[in-house]
Amino acid sequence: MNEISFSDRLKALKPFRVMEIAEQARLLESQGRSIVHFEIGELDFPTAAPIVDRAKVALENELTKYTGGNGLYELREKISGQYFEMGIDIDPERILITNGASGGLLLLLAGLLDAGDHFLSTDPGYPCHGAFASVIGTLIENVILKIGAEFQPEPTEFESRWSDSVKGILLSSPANPTGVIVQESTLKELKGLADRKKGFLIVDEIYQGINLSNSIYESALVVDREIFILNSFSKYYSMTGWRLGWVVVPRETAEYFTRLAQNIFLAPNTISQYAALEAFDDQCRAIHENRVQIIDQRIRTLCGGLLNLGFTIPVKPAGGFYVFVDISHTGLDSHDFCLKMLIDHGVAITPASDFSHHYGKNYVRFSCSTDLDSIYLGLDRLRLALAGWGI
Amino acid sequence: MNEISFSDRLKALKPFRVMEIAEQARLLESQGRSIVHFEIGELDFPTAAPIVDRAKVALENELTKYTGGNGLYELREKISGQYFEMGIDIDPERILITNGASGGLLLLLAGLLDAGDHFLSTDPGYPCHGAFASVIGTLIENVILKIGAEFQPEPTEFESRWSDSVKGILLSSPANPTGVIVQESTLKELKGLADRKKGFLIVDEIYQGINLSNSIYESALVVDREIFILNSFSKYYSMTGWRLGWVVVPRETAEYFTRLAQNIFLAPNTISQYAALEAFDDQCRAIHENRVQIIDQRIRTLCGGLLNLGFTIPVKPAGGFYVFVDISHTGLDSHDFCLKMLIDHGVAITPASDFSHHYGKNYVRFSCSTDLDSIYLGLDRLRLALAGWGI
Repeated sequence: MNEISFSDRLKALKPFRVMEIAEQARLLESQGRSIVHFEIGELDFPTAAPIVDRAKVALENELTKYTGGNGLYELREKISGQYFEMGIDIDPERILITNGASGGLLLLLAGLLDAGDHFLSTDPGYPCHGAFASVIGTLIENVILKIGAEFQPEPTEFESRWSDSVKGILLSSPANPTGVIVQESTLKELKGLADRKKGFLIVDEIYQGINLSNSIYESALVVDREIFILNSFSKYYSMTGWRLGWVVVPRETAEYFTRLAQNIFLAPNTISQYAALEAFDDQCRAIHENRVQIIDQRIRTLCGGLLNLGFTIPVKPAGGFYVFVDISHTGLDSHDFCLKMLIDHGVAITPASDFSHHYGKNYVRFSCSTDLDSIYLGLDRLRLALAGWGI
Repeated sequence: MNEISFSDRLKALKPFRVMEIAEQARLLESQGRSIVHFEIGELDFPTAAPIVDRAKVALENELTKYTGGNGLYELREKISGQYFEMGIDIDPERILITNGASGGLLLLLAGLLDAGDHFLSTDPGYPCHGAFASVIGTLIENVILKIGAEFQPEPTEFESRWSDSVKGILLSSPANPTGVIVQESTLKELKGLADRKKGFLIVDEIYQGINLSNSIYESALVVDREIFILNSFSKYYSMTGWRLGWVVVPRETAEYFTRLAQNIFLAPNTISQYAALEAFDDQCRAIHENRVQIIDQRIRTLCGGLLNLGFTIPVKPAGGFYVFVDISHTGLDSHDFCLKMLIDHGVAITPASDFSHHYGKNYVRFSCSTDLDSIYLGLDRLRLALAGWGI
């Protein structure tokens, strides 16, 4: 190849540990090994049948042309209707349908930050956030979440990190990998901080709906209508491969974000949008709520089993389908632990190093994207492994 | 709304004239007016039935989970097979499936340019290119294509514009709005220039296949296997709303681009990918080749009619479905001409100002995305308008 200079961001991107583990797990499986999958960030449920059927109807009706850059108005109305049920009045004009949450996050960050700007996020946090920051030439500064604070973001910490370069805050709630739902009072304080600094607050709510606690507010929008919201059809609605998400932006800015979306994405997938129209109706809601119950049972089973085996779970997950686990008592670092568990014992788990510079060495992430039988089998294998290591 | 500082790029983005014209045309139509649509950049053909049927089969088989970040290997093999038929040997590993050409272009530029870098492109050219440049904090410098050079890029002009900040060249072939296919010798020279400067050459081939001249090479890859290629299923394959495209990158870089794609897009749409597997088979090829004949007839009819009416078409389009027309003899500037034609005569045409700073005032773009009867009707209305203006 001729010598071409690639971008610094391209050269800097490291492969995710989770990808290495997942690839190795697939390789072992292809060799006939039985593998328990705690590494996969995609739920095992198929897309609900009524959604799939609606996609077929759209195909029958040749609904395969471009929609507007901000998506089908009818779908934005459905999302608005769902917020209304939560007691939040959001004009459909404020909602933009995006190519997954990935497209939504790029859109929000590109609309809010210039090259050279910084923004604050969290450690632990979603590892791709750094790549998004880098694509638009900005820098993410991660504020460490403390166990003593139950992995809740601490407004005083964010305030002390807010330099002149900082333009805003990006949080996830429920968070990946901790499962923490940010407290309403904390959100209020962080929004107040952002307002004082004339900065933004984005809350990534892609795991919204996957929690059992009815006492928890359902969207950060209850705290303030001008928080930027990122959401997705991939998790609660089991629509991963459909690549569909949405953002909520302040009314006055919707036109600008729509224009940017038209320029860099043209429009979200048309068939997925028609399919998603079905996602909010009663039949689908029953299916999805049942899945939340199933996930809850899996998480309780996994957490109980892990605690019995001597693992530490500093903060029990409140939402999402991950469990963030301290493995210090094994005496192994997380990478060695995960490799040994995979290769010697057929259990695929993700070391936390993708998600956390601070906790990476001693923590791993379990995903409850596999059924109860597999979870029991995984726990058995963990028990045997620990026994074998004399723990 | 609280005061938040948005990005410069968000504030700088102006609405496209084509969107204003299209909106006004829809408004007039909703009031009962008959409108001839020469403004739409989306062909009127539905997606070919075998492709739609394959999507239904994918839905039946619950193929709605994530694929890899670079897409289905089977689809990359099909694309590789098509290049092979053109006499070009491209390993499927070098092909990444993207979320439309939009996703592909963002991926290539983000992988090749850092904030502050510049790259060269053309005036006239595709207007969104500037927005992509701006999202990653770079600057596009457009080199003016001359009528005397038949709107071919002139390597000497590109060489003289190549400063230290310039990292490469982005061309389109067939081009929007001129319909020009870049000559093979010109491509060779430009690739030679890029090599000497250790820069990149990206060729956007999203209109590939929409031309009748069998003497024209079929992809810039015939000139050099290390040209970066951008392509799409939206035009030749009439799959706009499916949001699917691809890029070809040098073998050694495929892993890096895949990693970047995983980070910022996760994966392309799964259902669209399964559907596209059908696009390369004989039945679809017959459908698509017939459409190319239809487009050719439309272009010949429109060009003949416009020339008879005294319009100037400096370069007859060689590919794609647009005609770039000089309207100087009307004495109107392009914006006034298009507004008058729309409001007074029910013909929607795009002023060239979206596409060209240099030619914007005297040129318009006609799109042949409408049927022959409408083209005849549009020509009639143009004749009446000119007669009414005493031309």
